[in-house]
Amino acid sequence: MEAPEGAAGLRCHRPVVEMLDLPFLPSCVFLGGLGLLCIAFVGTWCQHWRGGFSLDGSARTFNWHPVLMVTGMVVLYGAAALIYRLPPARRGPKLPWKVVHSALALAAFVLAVLGLAAVFRFHNAHGTPNMYSLHSWLGLVTVLLFSCQWVAGFSTFLLPWAPTWLRAFYKPIHVFFGATVLMLSVASCVSGINEKLFFSLKNGTAEYKLLPAEAVFANTLGLLILLFGVLVLGALARPSWKRPDADSSDSHQPLLTAER
Amino acid sequence: MEAPEGAAGLRCHRPVVEMLDLPFLPSCVFLGGLGLLCIAFVGTWCQHWRGGFSLDGSARTFNWHPVLMVTGMVVLYGAAALIYRLPPARRGPKLPWKVVHSALALAAFVLAVLGLAAVFRFHNAHGTPNMYSLHSWLGLVTVLLFSCQWVAGFSTFLLPWAPTWLRAFYKPIHVFFGATVLMLSVASCVSGINEKLFFSLKNGTAEYKLLPAEAVFANTLGLLILLFGVLVLGALARPSWKRPDADSSDSHQPLLTAER
Repeated sequence: MEAPEGAAGLRCHRPVVEMLDLPFLPSCVFLGGLGLLCIAFVGTWCQHWRGGFSLDGSARTFNWHPVLMVTGMVVLYGAAALIYRLPPARRGPKLPWKVVHSALALAAFVLAVLGLAAVFRFHNAHGTPNMYSLHSWLGLVTVLLFSCQWVAGFSTFLLPWAPTWLRAFYKPIHVFFGATVLMLSVASCVSGINEKLFFSLKNGTAEYKLLPAEAVFANTLGLLILLFGVLVLGALARPSWKRPDADSSDSHQPLLTAER
Repeated sequence: MEAPEGAAGLRCHRPVVEMLDLPFLPSCVFLGGLGLLCIAFVGTWCQHWRGGFSLDGSARTFNWHPVLMVTGMVVLYGAAALIYRLPPARRGPKLPWKVVHSALALAAFVLAVLGLAAVFRFHNAHGTPNMYSLHSWLGLVTVLLFSCQWVAGFSTFLLPWAPTWLRAFYKPIHVFFGATVLMLSVASCVSGINEKLFFSLKNGTAEYKLLPAEAVFANTLGLLILLFGVLVLGALARPSWKRPDADSSDSHQPLLTAER
């Protein structure tokens, strides 16, 4: 039973809650910095401890895999998801921001495909089977789901074929699978970093269980990726950062129409 | 710019969207079944392929670790999070459901602590260092965060000390960290299953990369846990399954007051 005085009491306390609401821009700068830190960490790990990068099929070809997956499936993907929360994107026509969202997601997808190509090339060059570990199953499910998400989003929200009721119906599904793909990406990264450290740190004084500097560094990378993923999902869920007209007709405006 | 006819059009399409809204009870039965399937899978894995259970410090003591963590930190935790979505919990006083929520979360926490004790006992009996892998760091962070979440939730929502404004302020934080702990739990499980399979499947015809039956079974367990976590988070986010009076005074009613 809702007591009117209770509801009034809550209304009195609302300014306190809103006063303590996180300001968007500093949070956005922090998230951007954290994303760049993740890229810097994964690049430094592969360059400093794992021998750097090449395209010759060696372990240095494998090194593109973590860098491209973290950059594409976590950081660029997170940026694509958050684009509508930027203050200029919260006002005026949504269409240009839909194009930016779609382009960032496509860039993330291209990096992910290149990242998969790197690990397949490395495995094939060494006669190692592909697709046996839980990490590989999860990673492939994530990229396949992302590809369906991109194609369905582009076809429904940017191309002119989808009727308005379909756009309205598909939007919450797109939002749900968008968050799901980010969660799966983060879980893939954590299991992948864990697996790579067990593979790489096997001998003598550098054993993983002796926690050498590389292990501390790469474990920290895993926690930073998790923090980034959780904060992006938290930012997406904040009601005060959403476009006020999230359900307006403009949300359902296709890119290609007969009129424009 | 919001066009009135567009908004009217959306209102016309709302019944279509609502008609296609998922019914709660079948979804709840499916989620419950999926949770039980996760427990059955992890129990079967440890019993059938990893030698069963004991308390003697051997690998059979370790086997309690995956079973207790999946049962506690994923399935019971998910049940605790979803308790307010049950139809009887959506009506009438919230207080009894807060007690159930708190009790289920406490049970999940106790299982998690026993699960940690199992792996520490196994490591100590074999002279293996504790807390070096990314999986262990992430798992410990998750359980520590969960303990803070439980203590803060109990102190704020059930004990009588917290003023109403603090309850209103802390509630979205409690909800956010509740979802975060579930995400971290799922990521911990996936990295842990992946790690355990690399440890266990090293020799001859049972090598992980040859994808023996155990590997297919445990990889499937990992994907089922992920599916359960994602669906619980999706169920929590559905507006139509939330208590209509989520902000009423009853939400902020402590268990122990001078009056009752």
